[in-house]
Amino acid sequence: VSDTESVTMAHHVAIDAGGTSTRAVVVDVTGRCLGHGRGGAGNPISSGWEAAVGSLADAVGQALSAASIPAYAIRSAVVAMAGGASATPPMRPVEGGPRPEPPAEAGGEDGIGNALLPLGVTAPVHVEADLLAQYFSGTPAAEGYALVAGTGAAAIRVEDGSITRVADGLGWLLGDAGSGFWIGREVVRSVLSAADGRGPATALTGLLLAETGIPHPATDARAVTRGLVDLLYSMRPVHLARFAPLAFAADEDDVAIGIVEGAANALTDTLTAVLTGDVDGPVVLGGSVLRHQPRVGDRVREHLAGLGRQGPVHVVPDGLLGAAVLALRRAGTTVDAAVFARADASLARLR
Amino acid sequence: VSDTESVTMAHHVAIDAGGTSTRAVVVDVTGRCLGHGRGGAGNPISSGWEAAVGSLADAVGQALSAASIPAYAIRSAVVAMAGGASATPPMRPVEGGPRPEPPAEAGGEDGIGNALLPLGVTAPVHVEADLLAQYFSGTPAAEGYALVAGTGAAAIRVEDGSITRVADGLGWLLGDAGSGFWIGREVVRSVLSAADGRGPATALTGLLLAETGIPHPATDARAVTRGLVDLLYSMRPVHLARFAPLAFAADEDDVAIGIVEGAANALTDTLTAVLTGDVDGPVVLGGSVLRHQPRVGDRVREHLAGLGRQGPVHVVPDGLLGAAVLALRRAGTTVDAAVFARADASLARLR
Repeated sequence: VSDTESVTMAHHVAIDAGGTSTRAVVVDVTGRCLGHGRGGAGNPISSGWEAAVGSLADAVGQALSAASIPAYAIRSAVVAMAGGASATPPMRPVEGGPRPEPPAEAGGEDGIGNALLPLGVTAPVHVEADLLAQYFSGTPAAEGYALVAGTGAAAIRVEDGSITRVADGLGWLLGDAGSGFWIGREVVRSVLSAADGRGPATALTGLLLAETGIPHPATDARAVTRGLVDLLYSMRPVHLARFAPLAFAADEDDVAIGIVEGAANALTDTLTAVLTGDVDGPVVLGGSVLRHQPRVGDRVREHLAGLGRQGPVHVVPDGLLGAAVLALRRAGTTVDAAVFARADASLARLR
Repeated sequence: VSDTESVTMAHHVAIDAGGTSTRAVVVDVTGRCLGHGRGGAGNPISSGWEAAVGSLADAVGQALSAASIPAYAIRSAVVAMAGGASATPPMRPVEGGPRPEPPAEAGGEDGIGNALLPLGVTAPVHVEADLLAQYFSGTPAAEGYALVAGTGAAAIRVEDGSITRVADGLGWLLGDAGSGFWIGREVVRSVLSAADGRGPATALTGLLLAETGIPHPATDARAVTRGLVDLLYSMRPVHLARFAPLAFAADEDDVAIGIVEGAANALTDTLTAVLTGDVDGPVVLGGSVLRHQPRVGDRVREHLAGLGRQGPVHVVPDGLLGAAVLALRRAGTTVDAAVFARADASLARLR
């Protein structure tokens, strides 16, 4: 077998299955990303197993086509998803929906594994925690931390390439402090408190009414309350995350500033809970709140500096690169700085 | 028509329809309560219209029998229920369930009105806000305030016998600060924070695990988290109120003390939002949190004293007496101190 042939034969598929969209990439053993694909929502918790499995197949099919790699050349696949891998708490309705039971014949991870069979991918499919994939999207270091704040929020400690501690990530009802849901709910609560006199007037009122399309009769706070309560209880709770951007938009409003500070403090607390003196690796920040809102990330950086932690802080767009790193690690490839840089650069060119 | 006959003829039915049980009383025009009855859950929001209507009929049927009053002698009926009367926000899932649409043929309040027809009660049925019934359970004064904290929490200002301001009462997702739900959720959050290192150790952990039957492997905080998350997301959110008593039980635990103080502060804020210098009437406290937990009520009393308010503070068991007062007021009876005292004493003898 020539070198060329063996390289051609050893490819992996990495999938980042999220609540909104699914991304897949074909990567070779040197870390080169060769083809990229996208599908719909890939989280079985929020979308159901059938839709999630379809999204995975869509994304992987596109990635294989784009890479011009035949399905039989795929040696393994890694799917990063919420609740994946045993190091994290079991699947929970982080997206706000009821916990779906995997179909008996699909059998959880097995069901995800079968998702690629129609494409001719018979290689083993490994499910990994989305949090770990976010971590490895920022660094190849086997030790470090990730703090992810999107709709939900959680922090992890990584040692020897695996999650050894988790803080929060407990879903909208019981945790996710500082997440998009948490911020969105505080926006709504602040507007309702202003309406009935429990809290100060806030610019968030006008922004929220404009966003929801509820008329703003300045003379009738009770009508505002009634309109908001009717609308918001008709939504799935987790969708309150939709209002989080209003807190960042109202950046001269004391109430909004207080909400963002509260989120930054909660996220800092969550990260702090997993920090240990024994592990001084990089800190990876992910999720829409940390990606798009430098005020929150800056607060986290200040806190880390205050603790004397000098390691790098990386912000990542999603968990796709990390899923590829996990696929390579599982396949026995040493993902050093050079391999990581190659994967990072080649993936960036694809998307 | 003799005096005796006219008194015999002029009776009213008052009903306090709650999420757990329904109470009914037959009252004469002098305020004398003559018969009492009980039924199951009478809140159409949590139990559905059919069950609620059945509970109302049960309670009223018993009350009529106990009073030996024929149905045709009933001149009017008042039903106090969450969301009743236009002065409060419209029906919302304060009990955590989906908002039921009243059956077309029942038509909301009309549906409740029809509930008594099978008993032969053809008198008009008026729906009143449960908060106003709680208020009038404590005082006949036409002006004053009520603060009610059970599963939910709200404050009202009463002027000329009607609700003129409402604070909070916005349900578990958007408000109900300081309520049983709020306290129960803080109990759970505190235990989960202790488990993953975000918060201090607390005696609530042992109490919550005992209450939920989850084994307590002291060496495996993650198993505790997993067990709690699985259980709690399988419950209806509002049922977290079940854990509120743990916060009061752990009265030497700093975390639990902090939760109770937080609830007391939130409830004080809610009451404060409806206070005005123009209305200096009594303050009525109702709901299980205020009824059973003197620490919370004491905090509210201290706050009122600090504001220079010297009016009486009354704690009431439910809204039944107030529903009777509302029935008498609607019928044109002046409910003065003597009538109120007669109703209060005669109702107390019945139950």
